[in-house]
Amino acid sequence: MVDDLKGALSFSVGDTHNGSRRGTVKLNRGSFSTPIFMPVGTRGTIKAAIANDIAAIGFEVILGNTYHLMLRPGVEVIDALGGLGRFSGWKRSMLTDSGGFQVMSLGATFSDGGATFRSIYDGSIHDVTPEKAVWLQEMIGADIAMVLDVCTNLPASRDEIKRAMDLTHSWALRARFAKHRQDQAQFGIVQGGSEVDLRSESAKFISDVGFEGIALGGLAVGESRDDMLRAIDAVVPHLPPDKPRYLMGVGDPIGVVEAIARGIDMFDCVAPSRVARHGVAMTFSGKMHMRNQKYVRDESPIEPGCPCVACANFPRALIRHLVSVGEPTGGSLLTLHNLTFMYRLIEGSRNAISTKTLGEYIKSIYAAWGN
Amino acid sequence: MVDDLKGALSFSVGDTHNGSRRGTVKLNRGSFSTPIFMPVGTRGTIKAAIANDIAAIGFEVILGNTYHLMLRPGVEVIDALGGLGRFSGWKRSMLTDSGGFQVMSLGATFSDGGATFRSIYDGSIHDVTPEKAVWLQEMIGADIAMVLDVCTNLPASRDEIKRAMDLTHSWALRARFAKHRQDQAQFGIVQGGSEVDLRSESAKFISDVGFEGIALGGLAVGESRDDMLRAIDAVVPHLPPDKPRYLMGVGDPIGVVEAIARGIDMFDCVAPSRVARHGVAMTFSGKMHMRNQKYVRDESPIEPGCPCVACANFPRALIRHLVSVGEPTGGSLLTLHNLTFMYRLIEGSRNAISTKTLGEYIKSIYAAWGN
Ligand SMILES: [Zn+2]
Ligand SMILES: [Zn+2]
Repeated sequence: MVDDLKGALSFSVGDTHNGSRRGTVKLNRGSFSTPIFMPVGTRGTIKAAIANDIAAIGFEVILGNTYHLMLRPGVEVIDALGGLGRFSGWKRSMLTDSGGFQVMSLGATFSDGGATFRSIYDGSIHDVTPEKAVWLQEMIGADIAMVLDVCTNLPASRDEIKRAMDLTHSWALRARFAKHRQDQAQFGIVQGGSEVDLRSESAKFISDVGFEGIALGGLAVGESRDDMLRAIDAVVPHLPPDKPRYLMGVGDPIGVVEAIARGIDMFDCVAPSRVARHGVAMTFSGKMHMRNQKYVRDESPIEPGCPCVACANFPRALIRHLVSVGEPTGGSLLTLHNLTFMYRLIEGSRNAISTKTLGEYIKSIYAAWGN
Repeated sequence: MVDDLKGALSFSVGDTHNGSRRGTVKLNRGSFSTPIFMPVGTRGTIKAAIANDIAAIGFEVILGNTYHLMLRPGVEVIDALGGLGRFSGWKRSMLTDSGGFQVMSLGATFSDGGATFRSIYDGSIHDVTPEKAVWLQEMIGADIAMVLDVCTNLPASRDEIKRAMDLTHSWALRARFAKHRQDQAQFGIVQGGSEVDLRSESAKFISDVGFEGIALGGLAVGESRDDMLRAIDAVVPHLPPDKPRYLMGVGDPIGVVEAIARGIDMFDCVAPSRVARHGVAMTFSGKMHMRNQKYVRDESPIEPGCPCVACANFPRALIRHLVSVGEPTGGSLLTLHNLTFMYRLIEGSRNAISTKTLGEYIKSIYAAWGN
């Protein structure tokens, strides 16, 4: 429809296995392999971690939150510094969300034109429109920008879901027309809640716009995992096979591997670092609550064989001590471990696609992480 | 007097210049160069920093707080794990304080026998005696242990200072006799407040006991810098030249270099990491308040030429943003910078001793850090 407005992204598919696939995304700066998990750098930094430690794990892309960055330090500041990469010291690729999800969760009022919300920092009133979300992200200057969408918490009535989807579609077109930067890719977002026919309709509509990639939004917002997977199944067949597919906000291990099996290429989630700050380690044997008294004299690393800074150097006893006395270093070490786990989870999925053993891999994740 | 109870430490003096000196301390495990600054790892970790990053700066010794460690996780736990080194994941040398300073600052009641205090964690009542402080530190298993002393906040009456000093002396003997571990060095502590004759008397008394090293305690506790330097001048001539000298709790740049000029070998201080968490950077041009609006678009590193992780990767604008919005990563990056500054300050002093330019070096530190 408007696909003469190309952004700087090309995608090539490598090994495939049933519906799953490996691939390579080439961007204006750098490239990355898929499937990929992107850590979330909310306010210009991954919480409790230094960019270099995130790069050392192997991550190729991190996500920045437009909502937070537009309020602090402001997009003009980031632009003046030469973009989010230079401002944040992250030297690899970046993706920014549109701010729509935060705006919604923080109680914005929506109209057909856009959304109005109150700053969490100083209570000031701000508005965001599809065009402004494009402009904000072009100022921030990430490699991949997301369109502004309207997301509904689930469960919601079909009417409400349809209204949000229709508005999302009209905003997607406005965002595509508002795009200027040729060195930035733009992803559209499929909505439709847990209504599978609306999901299919939305997938077709968004695919037709000609975005450089397609995201599935409005999932992992309260629905069951089965409902989420049904929504993915309703969407994927209608997506162009030569564009990356990004499932927004999903980071639970079972959800990730099930989505990879269905042909999803990209993931992001704050959960691995958020649960870390609450003392939870994610491992291939499941969750570990590190505050537990049973670790008080435990000399083993959190997860034997894990190459992260925490596991390579510190016993569980220290991690337990640090999280118990409230030393932030405990949360930092667990953040690095959990992100390393996510990296390895994705790496394992990639290998399983190539060796056509993804089914067995998914079974092993279910065995550790239950239903 | 009791110097048949030797611990595992030898000290050799290298270059000297007026009263200042370089040296090498050999311990049971590892060795380190002096002058040295030791970061403080209060509760098994340097606040807001991971042990590996501290080692990467170059630090050879860190300090652990017996007071905190005896309460959480408890010395039995640390002993069961094979000592503080293995528990904390710090692979180089460690020194533990006796807990006396914390006990005093948290309002303990002292008797001739020892001190009684209330845990900051759960309000439970604990006591510590000179013998127990030895036992606690032998359980913790650092390379260097400190005797329990009695410190007075300054200003204080001569009577009060003398009473504290006399008790410190009797406790020093008790601590020396209580020592068992042959793989751990034990340092005595000189008291005497700002009374120079008492300082000299205490220096002689403590020197006679035969400790492997001598510390100057009860300084930087409210007195002027001149009073502190006068106290050092009253002590140093009475100390054995072949034992390392440790000025406890001093970390302000001028105080450090002035003390090095007077023959002090070892330092520790929480200030560099504490001020970091309040947004202050320490540099060779003085203090920088990173919250300041003037850094909002500043692309320079905190301190050009500084090799730390923060300066090598991030602009002042990001540091300002992180400390302004309260992201702990801001404090972590400033902690690494400030500790790198302390490391370089000491390194500069070492070089200045060798090149006999310590006077000029001290002048440059005064120029940056005022009076
Ligand atoms: Zn790990
Ligand atoms: Zn620096």
